Amino acid sequence: MPPTIGVFDSGFGGLTVLRALVARLPRARFAFIGDTARLPYGSKSRRTIARYAAQSAQFLVNQQGAEFLVIACNTASALALDAIQEAVPVPVLGVIEPGAEAARQASCTGDVLVIATDATVHSHAYAAACRARGLRALEKACPLLVPLVEEGWTGPLMAARAATESSAAQAASALHQAAVTAEVIRIYLDELNAEAAAQGMNADTLVLGCTHYPLLRRLIEKAVPAGMRVIDSAEAAAEAAVRLFNGRAASLTGEQESENPPPAAQLRCFATDSVEKF
Amino acid sequence: MPPTIGVFDSGFGGLTVLRALVARLPRARFAFIGDTARLPYGSKSRRTIARYAAQSAQFLVNQQGAEFLVIACNTASALALDAIQEAVPVPVLGVIEPGAEAARQASCTGDVLVIATDATVHSHAYAAACRARGLRALEKACPLLVPLVEEGWTGPLMAARAATESSAAQAASALHQAAVTAEVIRIYLDELNAEAAAQGMNADTLVLGCTHYPLLRRLIEKAVPAGMRVIDSAEAAAEAAVRLFNGRAASLTGEQESENPPPAAQLRCFATDSVEKF
Repeated sequence: MPPTIGVFDSGFGGLTVLRALVARLPRARFAFIGDTARLPYGSKSRRTIARYAAQSAQFLVNQQGAEFLVIACNTASALALDAIQEAVPVPVLGVIEPGAEAARQASCTGDVLVIATDATVHSHAYAAACRARGLRALEKACPLLVPLVEEGWTGPLMAARAATESSAAQAASALHQAAVTAEVIRIYLDELNAEAAAQGMNADTLVLGCTHYPLLRRLIEKAVPAGMRVIDSAEAAAEAAVRLFNGRAASLTGEQESENPPPAAQLRCFATDSVEKF
Repeated sequence: MPPTIGVFDSGFGGLTVLRALVARLPRARFAFIGDTARLPYGSKSRRTIARYAAQSAQFLVNQQGAEFLVIACNTASALALDAIQEAVPVPVLGVIEPGAEAARQASCTGDVLVIATDATVHSHAYAAACRARGLRALEKACPLLVPLVEEGWTGPLMAARAATESSAAQAASALHQAAVTAEVIRIYLDELNAEAAAQGMNADTLVLGCTHYPLLRRLIEKAVPAGMRVIDSAEAAAEAAVRLFNGRAASLTGEQESENPPPAAQLRCFATDSVEKF
């Protein structure tokens, strides 16, 4: 019986981490919970986030039998990883350390930019994780990006889909929406780059410090200066999870042949409130 | 001793209602609570919203001695007014009925547009309240407007303030931000007007069905077709509250002279989480 990996997010952004995990561990069993009754965490206090996150972690371990937890939410990882680890007796992996480690591997100059929610930025968890690796990090909160993703104004792909599936008016509207999102990204990144330049930084790497942001990756890649690398904390966390589960990874990744091949990935999803957005 | 009026919101948008109330009832005592630990309500289910709102209402009545409650949140008014009224033994006033009543007084054609949060729109509370008054209403969810207000991208005023108080770069950034907000409003209203036209409506009134939206009023007024009236549910609710408190209004409004003039408005504010945004 493969172990159950519990994946927790404040909402649905963590599905980008789950997607990356399922791709790498196709034989594992997953239990995902999104705390949709109380999202978003990005604007809440550390104590509140810690209490909420610990409750969901206990649900995954006590009710769903999770033997590992992946905190697929930068805000919860930044503010509540210790509280979650104290609340459950299984290994807990957040997304901040893997994201910072991926930035270390990507950066040549040692100067790194991070975009994230308000709460993640105010925690300075990325700055600390980067500093521990000899990197300088400048963090910027981008509170509008999560709502833009939730609204589906996610860029050319959505616009193209609307063009093939819907009316011309809807396609035009999707293009306008994508242009708004691109402009919001440009404003945030211009401010961030100006601040980095003012601090004498020579940044060559941008960390997407929120699990919603990979859904804006193409627009973000268009907006960054030429040559800047974009690091996806969701992908980085999934890779770190595979290394963490190394002892069992052979069976989970399906690389080992056997006479009774294990079943395909099993996935149970839960939410603390309505699941329409799933 | 003037009575205490309890004002409840899921966050801080309801401060627009409180501001309107204080202006009309300068001698009253107010207790305001924002349920910031669990905002926003706009994307949550009816049952969850009802439970949260009832808890805050009970706090205002049982702990703060409120003798009237104003639910300064369209989402809570739309989905939980009955639950709140059942939870407390004092009169409860929401913002939907006053908003619909103001629309009835403003509209000549009887066709009304409403913009609000997801949850308010899905409840169709405005459509029902308008129908009861012989109006046709078309509702549209505008989920990005609250985050834009919370982020402070609220238009020319903020841009002008940045120009006088900050650097030229910040002022330019504020102008870009205002342009984004104006474009988001234009996209939403274009979609709404197109849908209204497709339904053969001749709308002449737009209801701001969220207490955050008055902070975008100037941008919205620029975006609506010429001659369309814009109704602020916060103002409408404050006027309805004054009528509700009619028996005591003379002392509350300060119109009555006395040898010992009552003190100025007293205001106690509470939040269920961090209060930085206050």
